Amino acid sequence: MNIGIDVGGTNIKVGLVNDNGEIVLKHSVPTPKDTAENFKNALENAVEELLKKADFDVDVKAVGIGVPGIVDRENGVLVFSDKIPYGNLNARELFGKKYNAPVCVENDANCAAFGEFSVTEGQKDFVFVTLGTGVGGGIVIDGNLYTGLNGVAAEIGHITTHAGGRDCSCGRKGCLEAYASVTALIDFTKEISDQLNIDPSKITGKTAFEEAKKGNAAALKVRDRWIEEVGIGVASIVNVFQPDEVVIGGAISKEGSVLLDPIRKYVAENDYSAGDPSLPKTKINLSRIREDAGAIGAALLGKKYREQVIK
Amino acid sequence: MNIGIDVGGTNIKVGLVNDNGEIVLKHSVPTPKDTAENFKNALENAVEELLKKADFDVDVKAVGIGVPGIVDRENGVLVFSDKIPYGNLNARELFGKKYNAPVCVENDANCAAFGEFSVTEGQKDFVFVTLGTGVGGGIVIDGNLYTGLNGVAAEIGHITTHAGGRDCSCGRKGCLEAYASVTALIDFTKEISDQLNIDPSKITGKTAFEEAKKGNAAALKVRDRWIEEVGIGVASIVNVFQPDEVVIGGAISKEGSVLLDPIRKYVAENDYSAGDPSLPKTKINLSRIREDAGAIGAALLGKKYREQVIK
Repeated sequence: MNIGIDVGGTNIKVGLVNDNGEIVLKHSVPTPKDTAENFKNALENAVEELLKKADFDVDVKAVGIGVPGIVDRENGVLVFSDKIPYGNLNARELFGKKYNAPVCVENDANCAAFGEFSVTEGQKDFVFVTLGTGVGGGIVIDGNLYTGLNGVAAEIGHITTHAGGRDCSCGRKGCLEAYASVTALIDFTKEISDQLNIDPSKITGKTAFEEAKKGNAAALKVRDRWIEEVGIGVASIVNVFQPDEVVIGGAISKEGSVLLDPIRKYVAENDYSAGDPSLPKTKINLSRIREDAGAIGAALLGKKYREQVIK
Repeated sequence: MNIGIDVGGTNIKVGLVNDNGEIVLKHSVPTPKDTAENFKNALENAVEELLKKADFDVDVKAVGIGVPGIVDRENGVLVFSDKIPYGNLNARELFGKKYNAPVCVENDANCAAFGEFSVTEGQKDFVFVTLGTGVGGGIVIDGNLYTGLNGVAAEIGHITTHAGGRDCSCGRKGCLEAYASVTALIDFTKEISDQLNIDPSKITGKTAFEEAKKGNAAALKVRDRWIEEVGIGVASIVNVFQPDEVVIGGAISKEGSVLLDPIRKYVAENDYSAGDPSLPKTKINLSRIREDAGAIGAALLGKKYREQVIK
């Protein structure tokens, strides 16, 4: 059995994942954000409690950990996040000793991408786009996670889609993230708050979707404009990668076909390969395993790492 | 020896390329654009003349052909170009019979990308961007040409960089190509033709560079603005791929450091990995083998194909 650990800004989710990528047991604890010691203890305890929960003997074959921020893959170290104090935790040492198993660390969006990829069938090339505070992503090429020369590839949110446009959290202007993140959606919704019967401070990513459903014309316009921004990003990805599939994740993916259908339509119209209808086309879908994607992907990357180090 | 054929809108360039990717002999003939028969004859004759030129016995091990437009890789057929009448030529059959060698066909930008990649050392992931009438490209991942699920990936010119902006040749709006192609540079230069002492009909891609060098302020502005558009595209590619290198090709790459330096500067400032100076960075360079890239790449893809079919 493989252990997958998905460290988020709110919770640490841990799961027992078999070699088929099925999560058979899971557990979750809040993420301590005060000290590195508390974070380390919570990480250890979460796994211990998960193993206690199991009513069978668990043979830990591999451990995979996905975290936001910067990791040192080579040494299995959690290096830096602006939200969680890692204290340069050597996770390979910690869990490797404890469970006598290979341990790998990876960026959280990459883990989610690999998790989502694992539930597809017969695919080789795959792009995951996650819409949240920012716009993140992960790329799978020929069945392997693609991370570039320095491990930080797939910053899909930092394609320029509106040169010279809105300020982005990265300090640049006009990035996809400044238009297609849920943060941007909230900003756009706040701009029309006088046309909604809602305290602006209570506006969330759901507001425009909910108010549009109720028939508010301004909310409908904001929602549809934002969805088109997502479509612009996905179409650019399709024109560069022509992958087997693009999957869109993040809590907002729960909006379902209201979100998916117009993205599919936009991409169908803006896919460069549209000129030749005989060519196979990239499938566009919403996340299938949502909150489990990170832990499943981390566990399967752990399994992959095990296969590399133990031959 | 491998034969590389690079079919362009003006000339068919053929070359004898050894397994190290060195072009040892080359030949060029004009590309017939009137009938499929004339095109086929020119293609055959070009190779025959090349072999006649050789003062040694040539053992043809593989043939690679790069062409603009659509190819059927599986069957080795030249399917369609809007400029050259292919007449569904089965190049595998034609050259396979003639030289008793494996034959592969590929898109021309992909061949050039693979050619440029072949003269790098120790690289795995590589992106080629070619600036010309349009903006094309080719992607190499882990040493292999990446073409996606339908063979038409790497349409780098059709990333949206200016959502809702200038009309693109593809029918959409705001594509990178509409801002960073040489066609766009010519358009921008024509817009300031009243500030240049040049007949607008004589404006080429070189004009802004030449007039800027002479001190014309308007030309300088046009040149620098256009170079920044190229930078926007390259930075987006870097943020998605973090490849070992991005190489910029097309005749305009002859402008040298006047073109390259500001692109490097823009990318250094807009590379998402800039936040961590310790991370290795993507190298940005201009084409090293320019007019030979297509034939060399085609020949090496032919060699690769041979290795796949003859095991």
